[in-house]
Amino acid sequence: MQSFHKTKKRIQQAALIILLTISFGNVRAQSATEQPESKATWIWYPGDYEIWLSNQMQNRRTDRGSFFPVFWKMDNHFVLMDFHKTYTLQKPEEVHIYAEGKYNVKLDGKLFEGTPSIITVPAGKHKINIKVYSLATVPAIFVKGSTIVSDTSWLLTYEDKEWIDETGKTSDVSATQWVKAGSGNFNDPNILPSQFKLATRPQSPISVAKEGDASLMDFGKETFGYIHLHGIKGKGKINIIYGESKEEANSDSEAITLDRLYFDHEVNTDSILPLSKAFRYIKLETSDGITVDSVSMLYEYADIKDKGSFRCSDTLINKIYDVAKYTLHLNTREFFIDGIKRDRWVWSGDAYQSYLMNYYLMNDNETVKRTIYALRGKDPVTSHINTIMDYTFYWFLSIYDYYMYSGDTSFIKQNYPRMKTLMDFCLSRRNKDGLMEGQPGDWIFIDWANGLSKKGEVSFEQMLFCRSLETMALCAKINNDVKDVNVYTNLAKDVKQKLFDYYWNDQKKALVHSRINGVATQNVTRYANMFGIFFNYFTPKQEQEIKTSVLLNNSVQKITTPYMRFYELEALCALGDQQLVLKEMKDYWGGMLKLGATSFWEEYDPSKHGAENYAMYGRAFGKSLCHAWGASPIYLLGKYYLGVSPTSPGYATYNVQPSLGGLKWMEGTVPTPHGNIRLRCDQTTIRIKASEGEGTLRLKSKTVPKGNHMKLKKLNNDLYEINIQPNVEYTITYKTL
Amino acid sequence: MQSFHKTKKRIQQAALIILLTISFGNVRAQSATEQPESKATWIWYPGDYEIWLSNQMQNRRTDRGSFFPVFWKMDNHFVLMDFHKTYTLQKPEEVHIYAEGKYNVKLDGKLFEGTPSIITVPAGKHKINIKVYSLATVPAIFVKGSTIVSDTSWLLTYEDKEWIDETGKTSDVSATQWVKAGSGNFNDPNILPSQFKLATRPQSPISVAKEGDASLMDFGKETFGYIHLHGIKGKGKINIIYGESKEEANSDSEAITLDRLYFDHEVNTDSILPLSKAFRYIKLETSDGITVDSVSMLYEYADIKDKGSFRCSDTLINKIYDVAKYTLHLNTREFFIDGIKRDRWVWSGDAYQSYLMNYYLMNDNETVKRTIYALRGKDPVTSHINTIMDYTFYWFLSIYDYYMYSGDTSFIKQNYPRMKTLMDFCLSRRNKDGLMEGQPGDWIFIDWANGLSKKGEVSFEQMLFCRSLETMALCAKINNDVKDVNVYTNLAKDVKQKLFDYYWNDQKKALVHSRINGVATQNVTRYANMFGIFFNYFTPKQEQEIKTSVLLNNSVQKITTPYMRFYELEALCALGDQQLVLKEMKDYWGGMLKLGATSFWEEYDPSKHGAENYAMYGRAFGKSLCHAWGASPIYLLGKYYLGVSPTSPGYATYNVQPSLGGLKWMEGTVPTPHGNIRLRCDQTTIRIKASEGEGTLRLKSKTVPKGNHMKLKKLNNDLYEINIQPNVEYTITYKTL
Repeated sequence: MQSFHKTKKRIQQAALIILLTISFGNVRAQSATEQPESKATWIWYPGDYEIWLSNQMQNRRTDRGSFFPVFWKMDNHFVLMDFHKTYTLQKPEEVHIYAEGKYNVKLDGKLFEGTPSIITVPAGKHKINIKVYSLATVPAIFVKGSTIVSDTSWLLTYEDKEWIDETGKTSDVSATQWVKAGSGNFNDPNILPSQFKLATRPQSPISVAKEGDASLMDFGKETFGYIHLHGIKGKGKINIIYGESKEEANSDSEAITLDRLYFDHEVNTDSILPLSKAFRYIKLETSDGITVDSVSMLYEYADIKDKGSFRCSDTLINKIYDVAKYTLHLNTREFFIDGIKRDRWVWSGDAYQSYLMNYYLMNDNETVKRTIYALRGKDPVTSHINTIMDYTFYWFLSIYDYYMYSGDTSFIKQNYPRMKTLMDFCLSRRNKDGLMEGQPGDWIFIDWANGLSKKGEVSFEQMLFCRSLETMALCAKINNDVKDVNVYTNLAKDVKQKLFDYYWNDQKKALVHSRINGVATQNVTRYANMFGIFFNYFTPKQEQEIKTSVLLNNSVQKITTPYMRFYELEALCALGDQQLVLKEMKDYWGGMLKLGATSFWEEYDPSKHGAENYAMYGRAFGKSLCHAWGASPIYLLGKYYLGVSPTSPGYATYNVQPSLGGLKWMEGTVPTPHGNIRLRCDQTTIRIKASEGEGTLRLKSKTVPKGNHMKLKKLNNDLYEINIQPNVEYTITYKTL
Repeated sequence: MQSFHKTKKRIQQAALIILLTISFGNVRAQSATEQPESKATWIWYPGDYEIWLSNQMQNRRTDRGSFFPVFWKMDNHFVLMDFHKTYTLQKPEEVHIYAEGKYNVKLDGKLFEGTPSIITVPAGKHKINIKVYSLATVPAIFVKGSTIVSDTSWLLTYEDKEWIDETGKTSDVSATQWVKAGSGNFNDPNILPSQFKLATRPQSPISVAKEGDASLMDFGKETFGYIHLHGIKGKGKINIIYGESKEEANSDSEAITLDRLYFDHEVNTDSILPLSKAFRYIKLETSDGITVDSVSMLYEYADIKDKGSFRCSDTLINKIYDVAKYTLHLNTREFFIDGIKRDRWVWSGDAYQSYLMNYYLMNDNETVKRTIYALRGKDPVTSHINTIMDYTFYWFLSIYDYYMYSGDTSFIKQNYPRMKTLMDFCLSRRNKDGLMEGQPGDWIFIDWANGLSKKGEVSFEQMLFCRSLETMALCAKINNDVKDVNVYTNLAKDVKQKLFDYYWNDQKKALVHSRINGVATQNVTRYANMFGIFFNYFTPKQEQEIKTSVLLNNSVQKITTPYMRFYELEALCALGDQQLVLKEMKDYWGGMLKLGATSFWEEYDPSKHGAENYAMYGRAFGKSLCHAWGASPIYLLGKYYLGVSPTSPGYATYNVQPSLGGLKWMEGTVPTPHGNIRLRCDQTTIRIKASEGEGTLRLKSKTVPKGNHMKLKKLNNDLYEINIQPNVEYTITYKTL
C-alpha cells in the first residue's frame, strides 16, 4: 500500500479528470477491438494448442503407478493448417519463417521450392500462405520480417478448399472457415510451443526421519513438483510413496501416488523423476544394495503474479486468505485444475470457481481463456463437458463472467461458433416441457451430498440453463447476430418463467428441488435457491423468504463441500450477511487450519478426527488436500467485503460496496483489465483509488459521508452513492451503521 | 486355366451338388454375421487407423521438393480409447498385453498397479478394460491368452462416461458409444500398426546414358519407389530429377518431382532416399567433388495377388488388359490413389473406379474398406468429400457396390452412423426445390471438360444424389432401421421423380444438363444420361433414344478423360454395344500404347503429338502418366465381356451374360467372396464353373443351347437362361447371333 499513501494527497482538477476519463476510454476501446499486433508471436488455430496442452497435462495423472486418464472424450487439434495474410509493402522485405511441423510457403499462390526458412517479399501487395502439417504437436508458425509478423490478425483455415481450375488457375473460396489466429504469448522463435514447461525451483525437505531402509521426509507444507534423488549408488529398487499427509506417505498400500523405480549405477548419479506429483511428505524406501545420498525437489509452478490483495484486522482471516492464495496458485497450472494430487484434471465446475477467484487475485486472462478452450474441446459435441450437465452450464457462465471482468470481445467472437454448437447440443436434449433432464450418459452432479436426488427435472439445472441462455443472447449481441439474440432471449425467458411456475412453492417459500414425471416434489435443497440470489432472479421479498426458509434453515440438508459452500456464502453475502459469513469462514476454513492444513481441502467435515479427514471415495487417502474450490475466501473477501465488482464489461463501470462484516479494518487491491482499484476501509474512513473505469461507491452511513472531489447521491435513509473517477484518490469519512 | 481343364470331366451327382450348396450357404452366412474371431489381432477404433494412415500417405506428396498436402480437412484419430470385453473362463488364464500408446488395465473395474504386460485372469466371468492414449499414432491393443484374444468382438469407446459415484462405487453407462473394434490383419504383437510399410524389392535401370556430370537412367517402364544411391563419395550436391517421360527427367525447370541433396562422405557410402517417387526415368546430376557409383531403386508395392484374369483372341486387348493391370497395381497402395506421381491422394471419384476394377482383379476387401474409411474421415462433416459434391455421392455408391460384391454386412453396420451424418450434411444443403446445387466452397467437378457448366442444379448431381439415397435406404434396412428406410426411400423417390419431371426433354430425347434459376437449359451432356443407363433409371425406350441422341451423337460434347470414358463405355456395354466399345478401347487405350505408354494416363487426346501429351494444368509435365482411372478395361472386360456381376449381395446370386463383341474367344476368372467364376467362351462353346452362389447364364443363341447338368429357360426369340450351380463345370454349346 506504499504508493497508495504516497499519492493520496495529490489534488487534481476536474478538467484533468475528464480528460483522463476520455483517454482511458480510448485505450479500453482499442483493446476490445481487434487491432493487429506488431510483435511476432507463435500462432495456431484458436483452441488447438490449448486442447493439445490439456491432453498433455491431464494424462500426467497416475494412480498407484498406473496411467489414469480422463473418462470423457479427449479431443485433438487440426493436423493440417493453412495460415495466410496479405501485406502491402513499401519496399522488399526479408522474412524469416519458423514452423512447428512440416510446411510449405506460397507467395501469391506460387509455391516456393523446398522448405524455405527465409523468403524475400517484393514491394507491393502480396499474399503469403504457409501450410503446416503436424500430428503429434499443434501446427504453428512464427514469422518475422520488419513489417510482416505472425500475430492474431493472420487468418487460418483447416480446409482451404483451394484448387486448380480447368484453366490451370488457382482459385480459393473464402468461405466462413477463415478464422483469426490464436496465440499465447510465445514470442521466441527458437522455442516451439510444444516445448512449453512451467517454471521450477529447487526446494529441500525441512526434516528427514530415518527408519531402517526408509526415510520419511517433510517438505513443510503441501507442494508440487519433481523429486530429485541425489547420489544414487548401487543396484536395486527405490520406492517413493507420496503423501499429502504423513499417514499417506507411511501407507505403502493405500497412498494414492507412488513411484517404483529400479536403478543400476556404479558411480553416484542424480535422477530427477519425470513426473511431477503433489505431496507434503515422501517416504523413500531403498532395497539392499542401493543408497541415495539425499532428496530434494523441483517445485513446479505457473509464474503468474498476484495483482489483488487483502489484509484486515483479523489474523485468522489473513491466514485463511494466505492459505487460500497458496491453494489457488498450486492449482493454477497450465490450466485451472481441481486438485494437484487428484484429479489433476480440468473440471468445468471447479475451473469456474478458480476463474472467479482469479479475477480477485492474479486476474490472468490467459489461463482463463486457455481453460475455457480446453474444456470446450472440438465439434461434434457428443456429451456434456466432463460428461456433467451442470458443468456444461458453468462453461457458459464462465464466458459471461470473463466478459464482465475483462471486456474482451475478441475472445467472445472467436469462441461464439463453439458456444452455439454446445448450446445446440443442450437444446436438442430438452424434454417435452423444454427443460433439461438427465439422459443416459449425462451426469447430474450438483454436489457431493448424501442421497441428493438427480431424478427428473432438477430446478438447479434449469437455473443454470436459463443463465446460459442469457449468456448466449449477450454473446449473440456482441456478434451482431440479431436473429440469435431473439432466439436465445426468448428461450431464456421461457425457462425463467417455468422455473417460477413449476418450482416455486409458496408454502415452503422456496424453489423446490425437482419435478418428477411432471410433478414438483416437496423437497427443498439449497442449490437453486442460492444461485437465484446472486443471479438476481428473485424479488427482494423472495430473497428474504429464502434466507429464512432455506439458507438459515438447519432442517434443509447442509452443504459439506467447499465447492457449494462457495455459492452458499456468496448468497449470504449478496444478502448482506457478511458478519455471519465471516464467522462461517473462520469456523470452516479456520477448522482446516487447526487440523494443520497448509492448503485447503476438497471436503471438510468438522465432526471427523485425525486421519479420518483424509478418506474419501472409499479410499483412506482419497481426499485431495489441496483443492482449488477450497480457496473461495479470495473471491468472497474481494467481491463482498472490499465489495468490488464490474457492472459493465471490463470495469468500464463498477460498484464498490465495502462491508466490514465485523472487521475493524480491511484494505486491499482488486485488479481491473489495465490497472486496479485500491481500497482501505475502517468504521469511519474509506480511502479509494481506481486506475480506470467509472465507479459507484455505495455506502451505508449514519452521517452524510464527507470527502474530497465527492459527487454524492443519497439513495434512501442511510444509503449513499459516491461517484469514483479514475486516478483520483478519495478519502471519505462516514459512520458505519 | 489349368485346374479348370483338370476338373472339367468330374461328374457330380445332383444330391452332392445340393449338399455343397447348403454348406456354401452356411459359410457365406457366417462371414456376413459378426462371429467373434479366435485369432489375436491388433484392434483399434474403426476407421481411426485408416485415417491416420491416409494422413501419412497423402502427406508424402511433394512438388519440386515442396511439401504438398491435400487442401481439404485432414481428420485425426481419437487419442484416448477404452477397449473392453467380458469373458467367462473355465480356468485361470495368463494374458499378454501389448499396446500402441500409454495404457492401463482394469479387471472388473479395478486398476492394476503400473502398466502390466502380463495379467492373470481368474476362472469365472470377468471384464477386462484397457485404456490407451496415443497422440502421434492410433491407440491400439493386441491381447493374447489361450481364450482371451483381441479381435473385432471387443467393444470400444472414446468416452466411457465412467465415474465414481457418491458411495465410492464405479459405475459406467453403456451408452450408444460402444462400437465393435476395427482391425486390419496385423497379427504380430511385436510389430506395431504404425510400423506398417508396403513391401519393396530392388530394381535396376535398363539403361544409363552419361552426359558430363549427369546421367539419364531408364527403368524400362513406369515404376514407383525409393532411389538407392550406391557408393557416394566426396562432398557436394546431387540432384535427382524424376520423369515419367524422358523429357520430364531432362527438364530441371519443369519436372514435377525432384530431390536436391547434399552429401559429405569420405568413404563410399550408400543412401536410400526417404521418400518414394513415381518415374520411369531419372536424371542424376552431381556437382564437382562428388561421385556416385551406381543407382538402383527399391520398387514399393502393395502385395496383393490377382484373383481375376482375362485373355482373348485379340493381342492388343490382351496388352491393354496387362497394362491396365499394372496401372491399377501401381495405384493400389495403402489406399486406392489417383495417380502415383500426382496427386498421390485418395480421391473419392477416382477410388470409386478402382473399387470396381478391384472387384474384377484382386477383389481385395481390405483396401476398399480402408479407402472408404479414409475418405469419410470424422464428424463433424464440414465439406463434401475432397470438397467435391459428386465425390460425396460416389462415396455412397461405393458402399452399395461393396455390399453387392462382398456381402459384408458388418462393415455396413459399422459404417452406417457416419453414412447418416454425411447424408445429413447433404440434406441440409438442398435448395428450396429439394435439389443439390453448389454452395460456396462446394466443388462441382463432374469431369475435366472445357466450358462445362457447373451452375444451378446439375442433372448429373441429382442422379448421383438419388442413387445415394437409395443406398441409404438399403443400408438402413441392413441396420433394421425401419424409420430410416422409409425416410430415405421417399427422398429417393422424390429426387427420381424430379429428375424426370425437370430434366427430361422430349424433343432432345435426353436429360438436359442443368436447371438455372428453376428453368431447364437446352444443353445436353453425356453425364446424367450415361449414368441413368447403368443405374437402370430409364425405360427401354428411353435407353434407345439416349443411345442415338446422346451416346452416339457427335454433336454432344465429347469426353476426353479416361475417367468419364469409363462410364461412357460402360453405358454402351450395358446397351449391348460391346462391338463398338471394343473398337473404342483399341483406339483409345491402344492409342496410348502406340505412344509408348507403359501405364495408362490421366488424359489422352489423340490429336496431340510427342511431349504435348505430357502437359496438363498449364504445366509441361503436369499430366499423370499412371492414373488409376486409366485402367477401366479391367472392369469393362470382366463385367461386360465375360459378363459376370452379382445380382444379390456377395454373389449369392449373379448373372453371367458373355459378350464377345467381335472377339473370337475369351477366357477369364471373376473373383467372388470365397472363390471365383471361371469362364471360357467362343462363338460356339461356353465353359463355366463357379465355386459359390447361384448363377444365371444369359445367352443369345441361334440354336437351343446344349450341355451337361443344364436347367434351361427360353426367355424370348434367341434369348436363353441357364441356371449355374456352384462347383459344377458346365460346357454349353450354342451358336452366336
